[in-house]
Amino acid sequence: MPLRFRTAGVDVGGTNLKVALLWSDGTVIAARQIPTHAEAGPEQGCRRIIETLQALAQEHGHGAEDLGAIGVDSAGLVDHEHNLVLDSPNLRGWERFPLAERIGAAFGAPVQLENDVNAMAYGEWRLGAGRGTRHMLCLALGTGVGGGLILDGRLYRGAHGAAAELGHTTLDLHGPQCSCPNVGCLERHIGAEYIATRAREKLAASERPSRLRDLPAAAITPRSISEAAAGGDELAAEVWTEVGTLLGQGLVSLVNIFDPERVVIGGGVAKAGERLFEPARRVVRARAMSLAARTEIVPAALGDDAGLVGATLLAVERAGGAAGATP
Amino acid sequence: MPLRFRTAGVDVGGTNLKVALLWSDGTVIAARQIPTHAEAGPEQGCRRIIETLQALAQEHGHGAEDLGAIGVDSAGLVDHEHNLVLDSPNLRGWERFPLAERIGAAFGAPVQLENDVNAMAYGEWRLGAGRGTRHMLCLALGTGVGGGLILDGRLYRGAHGAAAELGHTTLDLHGPQCSCPNVGCLERHIGAEYIATRAREKLAASERPSRLRDLPAAAITPRSISEAAAGGDELAAEVWTEVGTLLGQGLVSLVNIFDPERVVIGGGVAKAGERLFEPARRVVRARAMSLAARTEIVPAALGDDAGLVGATLLAVERAGGAAGATP
Repeated sequence: MPLRFRTAGVDVGGTNLKVALLWSDGTVIAARQIPTHAEAGPEQGCRRIIETLQALAQEHGHGAEDLGAIGVDSAGLVDHEHNLVLDSPNLRGWERFPLAERIGAAFGAPVQLENDVNAMAYGEWRLGAGRGTRHMLCLALGTGVGGGLILDGRLYRGAHGAAAELGHTTLDLHGPQCSCPNVGCLERHIGAEYIATRAREKLAASERPSRLRDLPAAAITPRSISEAAAGGDELAAEVWTEVGTLLGQGLVSLVNIFDPERVVIGGGVAKAGERLFEPARRVVRARAMSLAARTEIVPAALGDDAGLVGATLLAVERAGGAAGATP
Repeated sequence: MPLRFRTAGVDVGGTNLKVALLWSDGTVIAARQIPTHAEAGPEQGCRRIIETLQALAQEHGHGAEDLGAIGVDSAGLVDHEHNLVLDSPNLRGWERFPLAERIGAAFGAPVQLENDVNAMAYGEWRLGAGRGTRHMLCLALGTGVGGGLILDGRLYRGAHGAAAELGHTTLDLHGPQCSCPNVGCLERHIGAEYIATRAREKLAASERPSRLRDLPAAAITPRSISEAAAGGDELAAEVWTEVGTLLGQGLVSLVNIFDPERVVIGGGVAKAGERLFEPARRVVRARAMSLAARTEIVPAALGDDAGLVGATLLAVERAGGAAGATP
């Protein structure tokens, strides 16, 4: 197999599908996004993914037959050995459909399916903010709080591929019911919806001026709270200090458990930047065990492509490609 | 190297030192316990360990020169690459003393030092309650709550050897200060002292009959609470239900993070048995994510020898012994 060869990556989300051509070292050649239309079912989605990838390959001067590996990442619980999504709340009806295998068969390429945050962790570790570490945790902050684990230089999946539910660790055993069967989870405190609720509650609890008051309730989101904070809004800034403190409290448990070199944090909510990271680091420095408190806590570097890139690198590695060898 | 050869193990605790001759497959040939006399310092302790081991070897018909490997386990933070204890609250003044290297040099044998709960986890995994698993968590319940991690078939130590502080994961971010810099840790809820305090508080809060009322306050310990519960004492039984529920709440986070096949729980407090395990399992089944909730939660099998056996097996493995090959 040549040192560098052509590959493809597919990111399967509840809203959008992203399809890309990449070199086997993870460099993106070209990418295209199409709506998922989850309700139309997986057969239809699969056909559109294959067509989009074929069109992309032709436009970029090579046939669809020379792809050395295809990586697919999807939200939900993944059986990565059989390349099946077992459970995915945002893609009901797509479960157990052999999407990845169908795509692989269409291009005669070996394929690898991976959970989206696992794939993001692997991508960040190989090419992003986790480069050079041996033990790295990854958190994806959004509507949910997902996790990925690189331990002893390998992606850790657990006994059933269900590991790394870092958002479903307890912060408060007396806390409110989470969307999972547990109570008081990290996700139940810092998921996007709870950040918005926190802001609305702060607005309701006082008469303090805030530009968030000009927005309809539904427009109060992590993004608009970030924008307000960036514009000097004190109430909005306080929301991020509180959320960062809660994130830090969740990280205390995680660094005490893993003693990792680095925690890489991405996802839409992480775009709040230092307003979120600074208080989180402060709590970890103050409350984690001495050596674990040294853990670096940094923003993700690959943006929205991390999952697609990571899944592709995992597919290259499984296919035995030299460019995918573990560093 | 022969398939099975003679080895030794040394367990270094704040109260007692345990010295044993073992076969390289982990079978204990003979063991002896002597007081640590921690205050007399590590030079003196080291000399007595070596003398005891020499005497044990002579009594059992072979010279001290034929030990193929020596494993040492110690409480505290261990630099296992340099065989040094870096920090050990119960062995102040012994830190950074090259105890393991001195013992190895006295017998001309390769040596391996390991943290006691890491060694216990490895021992239980190879020969005890964790046999046959690929991902196993180990908890040692006593004054403190220690942890050990077998992940992807290997002992996981983290970036600084400080990983697996499973007792220092947050149960309650509004909880009381722990002995560590964090608040509301699992250890702060189910460490031996807090179990005793819980029983005393229950006694003080009501007039309910309990045989624990016959004991002086200092005699209310996990052991006496277990004995009372075994004798039908309802208040004592309730203490274990509450402690087991809290343990289970701590395990929810851990199984969501690791999706392990099994959690092995030992240490003095675990001698409470099913009164502790049953409520813990119930909470995990009810509150963990679906696949992680399948994790088996079982008592440790090797008793007090687990650390010594595990350290010896690690030493055999490092020495390249066939009997120490990872299964």
